[in-house]
Amino acid sequence: MRSKEKVRRLVYEILSVLKEGKHEGPQGARVIAKELQKRGFHIGDRAVRYHLKHLDERGLTKKRGSLKGRIITEKGEEEVRNDLVGERVGFIVGKIYELIYKMNYDLESGKGKIVANLSLLNSEKIEESLKIMKEIMKKGYAPSPLVKISNEGESVGKTKVPEGKVGIATVCSVTIDGLLIGEGIPVTPRFGGLLEIEKGKPNRFVDAIAYQGSSLDPLEVFASKKMTSYLNVLEKGSGRILANLRDIPASARAEAIEIIDRAKGNDLNGVLDIGAPAEALFGLPVEVNRVGIVVVGGINPAIAVEERGIEIETKPLEEILDISEMRHIQEFV
Amino acid sequence: MRSKEKVRRLVYEILSVLKEGKHEGPQGARVIAKELQKRGFHIGDRAVRYHLKHLDERGLTKKRGSLKGRIITEKGEEEVRNDLVGERVGFIVGKIYELIYKMNYDLESGKGKIVANLSLLNSEKIEESLKIMKEIMKKGYAPSPLVKISNEGESVGKTKVPEGKVGIATVCSVTIDGLLIGEGIPVTPRFGGLLEIEKGKPNRFVDAIAYQGSSLDPLEVFASKKMTSYLNVLEKGSGRILANLRDIPASARAEAIEIIDRAKGNDLNGVLDIGAPAEALFGLPVEVNRVGIVVVGGINPAIAVEERGIEIETKPLEEILDISEMRHIQEFV
Repeated sequence: MRSKEKVRRLVYEILSVLKEGKHEGPQGARVIAKELQKRGFHIGDRAVRYHLKHLDERGLTKKRGSLKGRIITEKGEEEVRNDLVGERVGFIVGKIYELIYKMNYDLESGKGKIVANLSLLNSEKIEESLKIMKEIMKKGYAPSPLVKISNEGESVGKTKVPEGKVGIATVCSVTIDGLLIGEGIPVTPRFGGLLEIEKGKPNRFVDAIAYQGSSLDPLEVFASKKMTSYLNVLEKGSGRILANLRDIPASARAEAIEIIDRAKGNDLNGVLDIGAPAEALFGLPVEVNRVGIVVVGGINPAIAVEERGIEIETKPLEEILDISEMRHIQEFV
Repeated sequence: MRSKEKVRRLVYEILSVLKEGKHEGPQGARVIAKELQKRGFHIGDRAVRYHLKHLDERGLTKKRGSLKGRIITEKGEEEVRNDLVGERVGFIVGKIYELIYKMNYDLESGKGKIVANLSLLNSEKIEESLKIMKEIMKKGYAPSPLVKISNEGESVGKTKVPEGKVGIATVCSVTIDGLLIGEGIPVTPRFGGLLEIEKGKPNRFVDAIAYQGSSLDPLEVFASKKMTSYLNVLEKGSGRILANLRDIPASARAEAIEIIDRAKGNDLNGVLDIGAPAEALFGLPVEVNRVGIVVVGGINPAIAVEERGIEIETKPLEEILDISEMRHIQEFV
């Protein structure tokens, strides 16, 4: 590494430490130095203090009142988001694994934490939106019919619902990956894609982006390019929805099928197909000794609402929620 | 392959043959069977005729008048575009190589064919658009200041400019790759990304998508998500433009630098940096024994026009043009 790259990297790591620990209040140079050492940077307290001073000057960190230590500013968080794109190419995969690691859902008892997407919309649109979501869920184009609805001021995971808004949390498709990993099956996210539905049946992927090579969430790309057509799917049985492909070792196929079957009984589903070893699924390739699994996108219900012209802001892979907080959408609409 | 996948593949290949040969008029079963054999499908005339009959019924192929053989319909072309996404993941790379193979530009004489992007816009907006394009080109954020302007009814490569429109062809950044490949240096397209410019200097990639894992053109994704900010770059010296990273064998570095230097003298440029072996460029990783080269996106001038609120339709990687048809933009504005 050139020396300039080295300093940039160190600054990035300092900001990352502050960002990750921001809920615990200001952090001092000693704590930061210790955390950096865990990550492989051998640097003392004094050097950290030197960098913090520069970060203060750049408005990326600041002191809070008379407390010792620093907190990260909004500008600092933006800097972390933008820096080191090389790490963020594949960033989505890192984020998926991080969330899965925080899950503790137990198939036996049906209790524990799952990964959720969060949508925020104007509260007067809630009923209309839930009706559309329910239709998508009924067709099996969402991984679960469970939702959590939160009113303004209430908290959903780490988010507080803003004034005039309502929050709808839905089950994210990586929850299925989490169930498999929880049983010891290594899962690798491969592609996010646009899946064509023909006469009520999934036909083929018409576009796809690899999770590993992208700093953007592939499904979010297709959604924001307005390439989906849920209303056609609902009205005519044919159209385009979001789905993704992951793969597992071929030898884990039978166990995976069993887990997926058990999950269905707990309202966790959305699996469209499980391939044979190295078999392409809906046109997407699967490597030798691997078995592909296609699951519908967790944001399908929310993007369908958007397609109906309702303003809705959707954050995929956003929260870790206890499934006991969620209810079947039929209880609401 | 499951038998259903096999038939789908064969049908796709028949349609591909018809699509590629459509400018030569209807093609008969015998010609198609021969072409399929070249591609590794051992199938006779009779079997091809059987499939053509079904394709006719589905509206994907048709006869033309009393002529023997079939032509592909618009619906058939759409089918080819949508089918086999597995092949189209990395499709952009295939298309790039195909275009480069058709180049024959000679650095010595400054003559021959290069790869161009094509933009179409309303003819009354031509002057305003050219002014913006010129500014972007002057700053060095396009691979060349050369353009070809075509009026309605005129042909640019394979495109005829529609009524009321004007066409502006600009040099595509893969022309630089073509120059290197022409001299025997194997080039691999890696990432298309969003490059942050700070105070007039390229600073870092803030987002990127790998060419190999995508069925969409990465630069087109960032452009359509309106993530660029050319007007800030022009007015304040800081903003975000499109650029891409390719790599070459480390041992070819010195020769590549020489070729790139010679190309500059011929108004072909846009290279922002050439790395050391395995050195990350603007935050994007480069593999061991490879050297990265970052080139500005050829569609930058056109997307800047779009950002100024002018309706413009831009097709990247669209045409093969003789450079003698192109003029320096200063001759027009």
